[in-house]
Amino acid sequence: MTGCQRRRASVSRAFMLPHLLCLMCFAVISLAENTEMVNVVTERKAEESHRQDSANLLIFIMLLTLTILTIWLFKHRRFRFLHETGLAMIYGLFVGIILRFGVHFPQDLNDVTLTCAMNSSPTTVLVNVSGRFYEYSLKGEVRDSKGHDVPNAEMLRKVTFDPEVFFNILLPPIIFHAGYSLKRRHFFRNLGSILSYAFVGTLTSCFVTGLVMYGCVVFMKVIGQLGGDFFFTDCLFFGAIVSATDPVTVLAIFNELKVDVDLYALMFGESVLNDAVAIILSSSIVAYQPEGDNRHTFDGSALLKSLGVFLGVFSGSFAMGAATGVMTALVTKFTKLRDFPLLETALFFLMSWSTFLLAEACSFTGVVAVLFCGITQAHYTYNNLSAESKSRSKQLFELLDFLAENFIFSYMGLTLFSFQHHVFNPFFIIGAFLAIFLGRAANIYPLSFLLNLGRKNKIASNFQHVMMFSGLRGAMTFALSIRDTATYARQLMFSTTLLIVFFTVWVCGGGTTPMLSLIVGVDTDQDNSVSSTHVTAPDGMTQRNTKHESAWPFRLWYTFDHNYLKPFLTHSGPPLTSTLPACCGPIARCLTSSQAYENAGQLHDEDTELILNDGSSLMYSDMTVSTDAHGMPTSQAGLYSLAGTSDDPLDREIVFGGTRLVLPTDEPPDPLTSFPPPPPSPPLSDPLRHRV
Amino acid sequence: MTGCQRRRASVSRAFMLPHLLCLMCFAVISLAENTEMVNVVTERKAEESHRQDSANLLIFIMLLTLTILTIWLFKHRRFRFLHETGLAMIYGLFVGIILRFGVHFPQDLNDVTLTCAMNSSPTTVLVNVSGRFYEYSLKGEVRDSKGHDVPNAEMLRKVTFDPEVFFNILLPPIIFHAGYSLKRRHFFRNLGSILSYAFVGTLTSCFVTGLVMYGCVVFMKVIGQLGGDFFFTDCLFFGAIVSATDPVTVLAIFNELKVDVDLYALMFGESVLNDAVAIILSSSIVAYQPEGDNRHTFDGSALLKSLGVFLGVFSGSFAMGAATGVMTALVTKFTKLRDFPLLETALFFLMSWSTFLLAEACSFTGVVAVLFCGITQAHYTYNNLSAESKSRSKQLFELLDFLAENFIFSYMGLTLFSFQHHVFNPFFIIGAFLAIFLGRAANIYPLSFLLNLGRKNKIASNFQHVMMFSGLRGAMTFALSIRDTATYARQLMFSTTLLIVFFTVWVCGGGTTPMLSLIVGVDTDQDNSVSSTHVTAPDGMTQRNTKHESAWPFRLWYTFDHNYLKPFLTHSGPPLTSTLPACCGPIARCLTSSQAYENAGQLHDEDTELILNDGSSLMYSDMTVSTDAHGMPTSQAGLYSLAGTSDDPLDREIVFGGTRLVLPTDEPPDPLTSFPPPPPSPPLSDPLRHRV
Repeated sequence: MTGCQRRRASVSRAFMLPHLLCLMCFAVISLAENTEMVNVVTERKAEESHRQDSANLLIFIMLLTLTILTIWLFKHRRFRFLHETGLAMIYGLFVGIILRFGVHFPQDLNDVTLTCAMNSSPTTVLVNVSGRFYEYSLKGEVRDSKGHDVPNAEMLRKVTFDPEVFFNILLPPIIFHAGYSLKRRHFFRNLGSILSYAFVGTLTSCFVTGLVMYGCVVFMKVIGQLGGDFFFTDCLFFGAIVSATDPVTVLAIFNELKVDVDLYALMFGESVLNDAVAIILSSSIVAYQPEGDNRHTFDGSALLKSLGVFLGVFSGSFAMGAATGVMTALVTKFTKLRDFPLLETALFFLMSWSTFLLAEACSFTGVVAVLFCGITQAHYTYNNLSAESKSRSKQLFELLDFLAENFIFSYMGLTLFSFQHHVFNPFFIIGAFLAIFLGRAANIYPLSFLLNLGRKNKIASNFQHVMMFSGLRGAMTFALSIRDTATYARQLMFSTTLLIVFFTVWVCGGGTTPMLSLIVGVDTDQDNSVSSTHVTAPDGMTQRNTKHESAWPFRLWYTFDHNYLKPFLTHSGPPLTSTLPACCGPIARCLTSSQAYENAGQLHDEDTELILNDGSSLMYSDMTVSTDAHGMPTSQAGLYSLAGTSDDPLDREIVFGGTRLVLPTDEPPDPLTSFPPPPPSPPLSDPLRHRV
Repeated sequence: MTGCQRRRASVSRAFMLPHLLCLMCFAVISLAENTEMVNVVTERKAEESHRQDSANLLIFIMLLTLTILTIWLFKHRRFRFLHETGLAMIYGLFVGIILRFGVHFPQDLNDVTLTCAMNSSPTTVLVNVSGRFYEYSLKGEVRDSKGHDVPNAEMLRKVTFDPEVFFNILLPPIIFHAGYSLKRRHFFRNLGSILSYAFVGTLTSCFVTGLVMYGCVVFMKVIGQLGGDFFFTDCLFFGAIVSATDPVTVLAIFNELKVDVDLYALMFGESVLNDAVAIILSSSIVAYQPEGDNRHTFDGSALLKSLGVFLGVFSGSFAMGAATGVMTALVTKFTKLRDFPLLETALFFLMSWSTFLLAEACSFTGVVAVLFCGITQAHYTYNNLSAESKSRSKQLFELLDFLAENFIFSYMGLTLFSFQHHVFNPFFIIGAFLAIFLGRAANIYPLSFLLNLGRKNKIASNFQHVMMFSGLRGAMTFALSIRDTATYARQLMFSTTLLIVFFTVWVCGGGTTPMLSLIVGVDTDQDNSVSSTHVTAPDGMTQRNTKHESAWPFRLWYTFDHNYLKPFLTHSGPPLTSTLPACCGPIARCLTSSQAYENAGQLHDEDTELILNDGSSLMYSDMTVSTDAHGMPTSQAGLYSLAGTSDDPLDREIVFGGTRLVLPTDEPPDPLTSFPPPPPSPPLSDPLRHRV
């Protein structure tokens, strides 16, 4: 028994609060047991720790409550120069200052630890205390304290969450909600551009930022400002985490600027998808481990392996998410769960959550899987839900998103003072700001130029500036950077990232929005009026204009989705009996629900109503004229009745619905003019008969 | 360094899953760090453990999904002999059997532990592994394995949750929802009887059960069947935990039996409140620790201390819950949060949660505080919410309740096979069934007799039988018994409790309901028709009948609540300007919102609509004729307009509302005939003018 020495632990990654965040601390146990004195003392300690933990969590709840009240006040007074997330950050900052400088907590015995020497680190340790065995579980590696001069070190450590909390509890609802509230119609029409920005753009941004940072780091080394190792992979990692832009703040900005919905979808879709790209990119960079002694040289096979990890994890997570979404759609379609909204919502929630677990259990990325699950659920399952479940599920995820979002931002503010291993380096910070600026520019401008070559609805240069400046860094960047703060390089990154988030949210998110709407607004509006008149002209027949906008792989997908997937998975869309070849008749009839014939048009319409967060009154409203059409469905129904005889399933659908006449942007572009028409429907199952 | 020996840990209380229930396991950390081989191994292990944890949690999610689908099938086919909680238990049972006997998991290195000797048990241990320090945290005491013969011991341990999860995560939403959906109008009118059953009854039941069990234990000792210590305090503890009846199953049973709403409120109110009594009672019994060597003798001062703990914790928790509820009411009244339902719901949710944390931080009982918070929120705050927030908050808590409830019950089924320290003793089991029967009888029959002496709306003997048999044991009993399973006595209790829950839910909750409705149903209906005709007679003036039903302390409370608290905390009720003395005029005007004048009657009406879980279509509907009155508010409004000149604020309110004419049971009984009338309202603030 050599090394039992008392020392105070200063843990680089703190993990006290998580236990209580979900409040599962190991409290008042074995109370009535035949206890000895030593047991009672342990219980007292555990109880004390539980009390302390509850109090800490209470601080956060109070912070959130305060934030909510202030948000209300701001909205009430129409005072909009600061986004609510910025507000949450400010409150967090204040609490951080108070905790650090204002309060003094006595150090208690809880924090005294014992050391004993061993020669490996198992996950569980049994400690023999005068004949009684106690189990201890591994928490992580502890490094030498740098915070001995900080007065409330222990207390500050306690209010710091386990970073995994962000990944496993707070991010999933945010990301799911982003996917679920994606403006799908416009999202799918601009899929090509969105994917370009999200993949090519984020990769470019990551590498440009990484290169600039590498230059900066080399410069710092030369002038002796670098306090530890900082490798090229670290630079790339930094590039990956600061390339993720935040979708929530994009929403807020686009409330102000009345830009074209397509451009809006572009921007929102990009910021949603680049989160997924950034998270997988960063783990691929981490997975880059060349063989041999020097682990920071170039190694082709390791690079290929990283690339493999990127592709494998991305496609795996995508498949998981889509599969769960499809399964939920099938379950909600073929059972009559809609009669019991509570059961339906519960099922919807559980299935969506199981995506996350499934992906994590298979070593994929749960957060990414949840994103694609959200998109799939919105595209298919949503159509099958009862009206009450629709609003229930939207409201539930809206609330979860709101709480998680504000929690993360107020926590960010708090961290600036409560985190004890900050490394602020002015050179690195200046370099980083330059790098993210260049990285974002290298993402937006060249890509927009290339995309404009193929796009009919051009991305105007003013809008490119908006995209450039509204690339706020938010929850994802923070979560990625706090995930590991063990080394010098990571601490430097974390502190710098925090400043970047503060700056972009307060300056870009707050002050720039009114400014941009003043300067760019007029131009954007003009641009918008030009682009939107040809898209959303009141003449119903102009919808054909949009069909050339997408490249053929996407158009192929639309056709397939509209003719086969939607009818198969939902009650909406044209009945499968009319889209599948005649030989599949029995199967088609089996898979098509009776509602599909009746609801074909109507449900499609509901579908388009799931646009953004329609729970909030301040949100950017849809610019199509669909609501006008709703007002007079009967008067125009006859106008196009001749179209019912056409072979075009889309035209026919317009007649059925009766409400979709002037919805030119309502549907994926009609594939008929550029593609062979789908096989004509067998006359026996003509849906027109079902209507009469 | 003496005692580093390898051994397999078998932990009496397992705690692996909690970490991942909320998924905060210590996964892939410090990946890009300058890692050594030992680090990589630790990470692999942690990652592996994270994967395993996700998979385990997935099992539960799948179980819940399956349960939901089956519940739907049962509801769809109108197949009701088994309550949904019983279903969840059956599925859990199957999964438990499969995990125990069907699957074989290889033992991995994760489970190997090291032992080193020390002379105290700190909460944190630092382990020095070849120069690197790893932190370990205390998990609890480990006792010698009894499960070496169980094949998948480690895996089974992993699917076992930390009992604190039940108390800190799963119970609060269930209990809050019970409080929030309490049928308040009828609850408050029967407050006296409900409190008698909940306090006197539960105490009686606890002591009777304890005494019977003590007899049983003594008998077992004599015949040599007792395998360990079992003291009288253990018997009392057992009595306390099995005295908590489950409110959820009560709801289901009362769907079938069309009994009087008052009697229903009695039953539901009792089962909600006795949960609170049982939880505090059990911790008071645990707190009974006589001084001296023999800790199981009688000691007057220790008994007094226990009594003090009981009263202190109960009143403290009550005060916390009520205070938070009142604060939320004030915030929602005096801000215009209603314009932003999302913010309002978030605030509501956070404030309710903070009650739990506040109570825990002050060493009170969070679960009990949450119950009273729920009741207060429903009674006051609910009136201030916007229509959307009303439905949002109801739906949110309904969903949380549903998920938590079914999780607990399916977990119960699983535990029967996954828990490794079961002690089944036929003598003890038979004794326990006898004891709970006698305990429940000693609660219901004598008390009902005494209460009937004072009650106008008698509790019929048939109904007493129903109360006797519908005392199902559920989530609370289970959570209390699993909280500590370290000693022989507690393991014996836990196993027996599990059987009691199974029996009561399946037999009493399932089969007995149709039986009871056949046998008792007719009588109950007659009884009901008698009791309800005099209460809900169509003549509006018969409402005066109900005023004598309650004892004076409760009537005093109604008057105070109706005249001062409701107007102060909500927009409803008579304006304070009319109830407060004239000298308080300025304050009264300041505290009375303009809506109070306008909405006085209407909001009251909404208030009464929060009855039971109105989300479910199967629920027991209100039996008053309020809906009829809604249909023709104008035709009858004039009928009673002469009452507007009366000094009685209640009568006047009837005229204002216009919809509450024939709502005799809508209001607390009019206090005027037995009490001095409240001061007449100053004529300048006569609310009638505001209406015109």
